[in-house]
Amino acid sequence: LRALVLEPGGPRVTSAHTRPVSDGEALIRLVLGGVCATDLELIKGYMGFSGVLGHECVGIVEDASDARWIGKRVVGEINCPCRSCPTCLAGRPTHCPHRSVLGIQDRDGVFAEAFRLPLENLHAVPDEVSDEAAVFTEPLAAACRITEQVQVGPGDRVIVLGVGRLGQLCARVLADTGAQVYGVARSRAKLDLLPRPITPVPAADLADLPRADVVVECTGAPGGLAVATGMVRPRGTLVLKTTLSTPASPDTNAWVIDEISVIGSRCGPFDKALGLLASGAVDPTPLVTDRFSLEDGVAALHSAGDSGNLKVLLSPE
Amino acid sequence: LRALVLEPGGPRVTSAHTRPVSDGEALIRLVLGGVCATDLELIKGYMGFSGVLGHECVGIVEDASDARWIGKRVVGEINCPCRSCPTCLAGRPTHCPHRSVLGIQDRDGVFAEAFRLPLENLHAVPDEVSDEAAVFTEPLAAACRITEQVQVGPGDRVIVLGVGRLGQLCARVLADTGAQVYGVARSRAKLDLLPRPITPVPAADLADLPRADVVVECTGAPGGLAVATGMVRPRGTLVLKTTLSTPASPDTNAWVIDEISVIGSRCGPFDKALGLLASGAVDPTPLVTDRFSLEDGVAALHSAGDSGNLKVLLSPE
Repeated sequence: LRALVLEPGGPRVTSAHTRPVSDGEALIRLVLGGVCATDLELIKGYMGFSGVLGHECVGIVEDASDARWIGKRVVGEINCPCRSCPTCLAGRPTHCPHRSVLGIQDRDGVFAEAFRLPLENLHAVPDEVSDEAAVFTEPLAAACRITEQVQVGPGDRVIVLGVGRLGQLCARVLADTGAQVYGVARSRAKLDLLPRPITPVPAADLADLPRADVVVECTGAPGGLAVATGMVRPRGTLVLKTTLSTPASPDTNAWVIDEISVIGSRCGPFDKALGLLASGAVDPTPLVTDRFSLEDGVAALHSAGDSGNLKVLLSPE
Repeated sequence: LRALVLEPGGPRVTSAHTRPVSDGEALIRLVLGGVCATDLELIKGYMGFSGVLGHECVGIVEDASDARWIGKRVVGEINCPCRSCPTCLAGRPTHCPHRSVLGIQDRDGVFAEAFRLPLENLHAVPDEVSDEAAVFTEPLAAACRITEQVQVGPGDRVIVLGVGRLGQLCARVLADTGAQVYGVARSRAKLDLLPRPITPVPAADLADLPRADVVVECTGAPGGLAVATGMVRPRGTLVLKTTLSTPASPDTNAWVIDEISVIGSRCGPFDKALGLLASGAVDPTPLVTDRFSLEDGVAALHSAGDSGNLKVLLSPE
């Protein structure tokens, strides 16, 4: 079984072991995987992870302890909680302190010919959703998470700061609520990818924009938080979607004086994301800028690190 | 008219000018003023303020464009908004970008024999509230602000990190909601001031405390934010009450991963604070650790900067 593995010396494609499925588990054959900024941060040392990389995917169930899943096209939630600790029982399983996380923490990821997940993490993909769209389910769900945490709708002004991989999806999801959304980037190519009615704003013109009700920080850069702070109105909300290997130094005085709410936002609802893909409300496929075979996985990671690229896909052959 | 003035060279007691009241304004004779951590930060250069210091007070209206106020014992809200800009019209006058703030920004403060405020900022003090309690109205209102921003009640666990001047009030207000409140300090004397049912926790024992639903950061120290982050549960709330002349460097990755909400919190409802004082639900008077005359105002500021002291009061003679 070939896999793209992060080892202490760096990522490389190698042969990994396999084993039969346990009770409650599925073995999933990879159809497409997507490279995420988190994968690139892991390579820089974030989380101290080693193992098979990757957590964005669509695949076909090859084996499962419940035979009804076999042959189904699926996407999978990435958090594997214990489901018995106080945090799980309080209804926050994605924050289980004992959890493993697909390709991020204590669990091999999806950049392999096949990978494992608990059956309860799986969602069948509707027929009308292409593989190229389905591979975006996990990051699209993360974008949908914002609408669970912050009330956003018509009449609200929202700035998405950094319309890279995740920011493009956040802008689309937030525009779908009826809010007036501004997508900010340095790169003209990224701005050109924003569909109507999202307003593209070159980073150089940011100072001309009035302060917004909600600012979503998606730059992936340590300086982004300070810029985002300057763009949110008093009593507005600043959503953090970015984890960083280098810490940021925000102006917390401005947060106190302007009574800003800073909301950390992570994984979101897969069912909602699949619904947006199935209805066509969000089409993420124009964001695919490159494709590689698993065997060329290291090149895929380099390509994803190129600032001109957005989503880089991996397929098993 | 004698006043404690912050000048570029530092604070000193000097004679200041006076003028008749304008329309909609009151001249208030100081009865008691309270020194706040913000006053000490202003002296260190925060906000670049110069002028008469002080914003916590109780006084008697000496002159007013509306004679009904004359002779009344009052406390005053500190923000003086324009009441006509978009922020004011959107219902956020305390965030008016054109506002002046009593003794903090573009407006002389209360550490003087007399001071001015718009009539609409004044609240009459109920007879059952002593001068020594009424002088706490402004910081107690700031503590009450938390309960407007975060839902706190029975069943919630709340940690107040740093039970100094403001933390003592926050702990009392939060305990009044029925929440289980833990007050944390290094100093035994500060812990001993916490009334039941607040649980005193020495800072050295903080690691033994389970993570809380809400953590209120009141340390006034740059390192407090990192400690507070470690004490809040996933999807919990971290309230920032502290402004600092030295910036903090929080672990924003933890906020994203644990989906923590960080809420900046500033000025609050005077009517609620006066209600808590009038009913006796909160008695702040044990927090008074020193008293000075206005003429010894510089010594009062030094005394307030002494870590063993809590509230230092100033009276005109």
